[in-house]
Amino acid sequence: MKKESIFHICTGTYAYASGKYTLNVRLKCAKNDLKSARVHYMNVYDHSQNRHISEMHRLCSDEFSDLYEAELTLPERHFKYFFELDGRDEHIYFTADGFLRGNVDNKNSFFFPVINEDEIPQFPAWAKGALVYQIFVDRFFSSKRRERVNREWDELPDRASIYGGDFDGIVEKLDYIRGLGTEVIYLCPVFRSKTNHKYDIEDYYAIDDMFGGEEALVRLVNAVHAKGMRLILDCVFNHMSYENAIFKDVVKNGEKSRYKDWFYLYSYPVDVQKGNYDTFAGCVPSMPRLNTSNPEVISYLVDSAVYWTKKLGIDGWRLDVADEVSTSLWRRFREEIIKVKPDALIIGEIWNHATKWMGGDQVHTVTNYKYRKWLLDFIHERIDSETFWQKIASNNMLYKTPCYDYLINLLGSHDTIRISEEVGRQKAALALLATMAFRGMPLIYYGDEIGLEGGEDPDNRRPMPWREVSKENTEYVSAFSKLRKGYEDIFKSGELRPYFTKGRLLAFERAWGGQALKIYINFGADEAPIDGEQIFGYNAGTKTVTTEKKDVNRIEGFSFAVCK
Amino acid sequence: MKKESIFHICTGTYAYASGKYTLNVRLKCAKNDLKSARVHYMNVYDHSQNRHISEMHRLCSDEFSDLYEAELTLPERHFKYFFELDGRDEHIYFTADGFLRGNVDNKNSFFFPVINEDEIPQFPAWAKGALVYQIFVDRFFSSKRRERVNREWDELPDRASIYGGDFDGIVEKLDYIRGLGTEVIYLCPVFRSKTNHKYDIEDYYAIDDMFGGEEALVRLVNAVHAKGMRLILDCVFNHMSYENAIFKDVVKNGEKSRYKDWFYLYSYPVDVQKGNYDTFAGCVPSMPRLNTSNPEVISYLVDSAVYWTKKLGIDGWRLDVADEVSTSLWRRFREEIIKVKPDALIIGEIWNHATKWMGGDQVHTVTNYKYRKWLLDFIHERIDSETFWQKIASNNMLYKTPCYDYLINLLGSHDTIRISEEVGRQKAALALLATMAFRGMPLIYYGDEIGLEGGEDPDNRRPMPWREVSKENTEYVSAFSKLRKGYEDIFKSGELRPYFTKGRLLAFERAWGGQALKIYINFGADEAPIDGEQIFGYNAGTKTVTTEKKDVNRIEGFSFAVCK
Repeated sequence: MKKESIFHICTGTYAYASGKYTLNVRLKCAKNDLKSARVHYMNVYDHSQNRHISEMHRLCSDEFSDLYEAELTLPERHFKYFFELDGRDEHIYFTADGFLRGNVDNKNSFFFPVINEDEIPQFPAWAKGALVYQIFVDRFFSSKRRERVNREWDELPDRASIYGGDFDGIVEKLDYIRGLGTEVIYLCPVFRSKTNHKYDIEDYYAIDDMFGGEEALVRLVNAVHAKGMRLILDCVFNHMSYENAIFKDVVKNGEKSRYKDWFYLYSYPVDVQKGNYDTFAGCVPSMPRLNTSNPEVISYLVDSAVYWTKKLGIDGWRLDVADEVSTSLWRRFREEIIKVKPDALIIGEIWNHATKWMGGDQVHTVTNYKYRKWLLDFIHERIDSETFWQKIASNNMLYKTPCYDYLINLLGSHDTIRISEEVGRQKAALALLATMAFRGMPLIYYGDEIGLEGGEDPDNRRPMPWREVSKENTEYVSAFSKLRKGYEDIFKSGELRPYFTKGRLLAFERAWGGQALKIYINFGADEAPIDGEQIFGYNAGTKTVTTEKKDVNRIEGFSFAVCK
Repeated sequence: MKKESIFHICTGTYAYASGKYTLNVRLKCAKNDLKSARVHYMNVYDHSQNRHISEMHRLCSDEFSDLYEAELTLPERHFKYFFELDGRDEHIYFTADGFLRGNVDNKNSFFFPVINEDEIPQFPAWAKGALVYQIFVDRFFSSKRRERVNREWDELPDRASIYGGDFDGIVEKLDYIRGLGTEVIYLCPVFRSKTNHKYDIEDYYAIDDMFGGEEALVRLVNAVHAKGMRLILDCVFNHMSYENAIFKDVVKNGEKSRYKDWFYLYSYPVDVQKGNYDTFAGCVPSMPRLNTSNPEVISYLVDSAVYWTKKLGIDGWRLDVADEVSTSLWRRFREEIIKVKPDALIIGEIWNHATKWMGGDQVHTVTNYKYRKWLLDFIHERIDSETFWQKIASNNMLYKTPCYDYLINLLGSHDTIRISEEVGRQKAALALLATMAFRGMPLIYYGDEIGLEGGEDPDNRRPMPWREVSKENTEYVSAFSKLRKGYEDIFKSGELRPYFTKGRLLAFERAWGGQALKIYINFGADEAPIDGEQIFGYNAGTKTVTTEKKDVNRIEGFSFAVCK
């Protein structure tokens, strides 16, 4: 046995409550090194030898490791445990005191002394596997000609472009959005700011008039709820606009400002030309970075989110630059938001390994950009399907199992090149279906459903080309959403089991409660062998959706199929 | 290279701030598998290829693994990094996206997006390596005959014994305590309770009269401070006494009690005979367990600690059963205590792997009972010195490096068999010196310095036998404390480097700033070869302390030596 590869700690993703009486424990080991693994466990205060035993299952495997998991349940909630490992060549116990050949004493156990209420994971049930539609408000639909508009709808954007998209415009298009299967609408920032993107907020307590102001937003929230969807807003706490009155006070009063400790100021006077203070991305003086460890700042910002959560009745928040805001702030944020809206969803914008923020007391989930990276690598033929699944497994190893159905899988956003620009419209459509079939919450960035193209910011924020929208060219999304609805348990709660396929075919199974569906996505031009009763098909070349059942033994090039 | 053994995550003990601008990163790998390792790092927002490079050093090694560490410093505090690994047979990069042979892009980096103020570790400087003396108040010294006393001082205790030790008694003995080299006195609980141990508090806002009440405690705090020492109290938040008015209210009013959510009640009426509620250790109805996730409970308990911290001017707290109290409570506790006493020390009573509570926002340190376990295993000849050091390394791997000088190394407490009972007086004296020379904060349980014996509770809480105390029989402790004071940097901040010695000899080096001392502890009867200029010696057989310098090439049986 490769003992040097066995890893377990009594915290983090390796030992965590998954319910009031349930502890999940994980063990990492070298790939294929164990034949089986079991956990022996008992109540901390039980001094007998009457241990419970749970078989561990292999949760996932990456290139070099297997990750095993078991769920231990004790009504007393006080756990001590150790592992029994069956290797190829030896049988051994792994304990808090190291490897033992036998005679394991309860004292050698790992301890998870108790599951307290504050550790029991709480996820909003409505969000599980739900389809999210992201809207950059200025670019979606304009209900009327607005004062500050400086571009025609069909022109390409620059950084200063204002097109006049607004809340009432979104209301007008809700049937379209709902028709795609959308369950959650996420809006980029809506608070007062002169810019089109509003990621630099001038007033956290005002909704921007450019989008129609507070009354129009209330209309939108109500209309969204009336159609059975949810609405999520964007929360920008890492930095503010240099035109925010709070920062202006610092510029004006320097060291005498009561807000001087709200920022990271390098010298006085504070000079927006020089930018002698910390900023977003380290080089954007128009966005001074807030000191989010300062309790005053924490209260001010969290209070604003609580205020809007209550006032608007929204369903959650997406947290901008979540990984640069203090963990103290997010803990307080979660506590306070959950008090006023117990089933609010909290999504962190985090591009990289997000373990640190996913402990259960900060965000519920994160923007899973690593999914995008590996899928693009597969589509661009930089990796094969086996590597794709290994990388997805490595990524999954970073998070607790209950999070898997909530990871925000996305192909792009206002911060990336458009997926159609990256891989072309056909493959983009297949990638979108793959995302909708994957485990987690699929996110569609407005326009991706019709193959909207666009390079780096600001080109990735083009106005929605409504002329190109038709029932026909979004049918693949709406039809698949219907299937998703028909097999809701499988798609929203089902396990995902990869198939190691050859060439450009990506395939996996979604399984729940004894039922399973097979998903095939052929990103290549050549047909590939598959098998089963097809219940959904899409050929991205011919743009044909097939929903009649039929037995199949192959999938055409550039096609998507779901089989029983 | 054994890639399946390479481990790193961007959080916990593997990536943590150790200063305002300094990030420590760790990498675990198979033992002796790497020739060297380096970290390449740069500011998150720097898109050039101008990386900084830091060599990693091998922090420690256990039986199967090496743990490497590097300190990365960036004034911008935004870190991205990856590892360069030199194996025996290959040279490779280890990144967030896996192993790469070359062409590492900054995007493959691990990210530690920023060090916020709330993550910068804060330790009370005065506590670094400080010697702690633990007192069980009823058993230390009695200033006068008290009403409830039911035992003569030289009788053996039972669970109900009350001997009359009190605060003024401790004041009378402060010169003795200080003479041992004590820097911190830690008192077992002092709040109102009928029991001798007071781990079941009846009133969190009253000091027990049995010990002399609040006025006497104030006299003690002042006297301790006047002698340049610190005082720490014991905080019992996991459970209370069933005679506490809060629990009595629940017994009386059942479901109608406003405190019903303060406990884990299984049914009504609440019955102290049946014990139909969760308790300390699951089986002690006189100690109902508190629901420490309840915000009301958190406020009530934390407020009481804040109240006494301010009122008494004490220097810190030892947290009873810290690992069963909610992490929410401890985070709040730390925040609030640090506000009123910025350099307070917070010690968690945790017997097992304590990673979960040592993140930097709960306790500063823990009772390092694993040190006791492994030292006993060595003294009892169950393991050799190599295994001892490997086990100490495994334990160290669980904690961030800045914690090492604060780990509370102890040979026993009111909860264990006395060290003299375990190993006999001679070896107990050597173990005590070893503990004082070790890295961390040594703790002496009152009486251990004179070899007080005693088995399981209540026998481990015998009255201090003052007749046996003399300058002579505590000289080994006081003289070594003087040496410790003379080489303060080495003993309080110095690294510890193990020697792999044969037989019953334990040996290590303490090193700081280019200076080093060699420590030898011979737990065996046979002499053993050592070398150097001895500056301190103690023969536990003859009870002889030697402080004159002399060149030595051997250490006698049952002896302790410090050499240059």
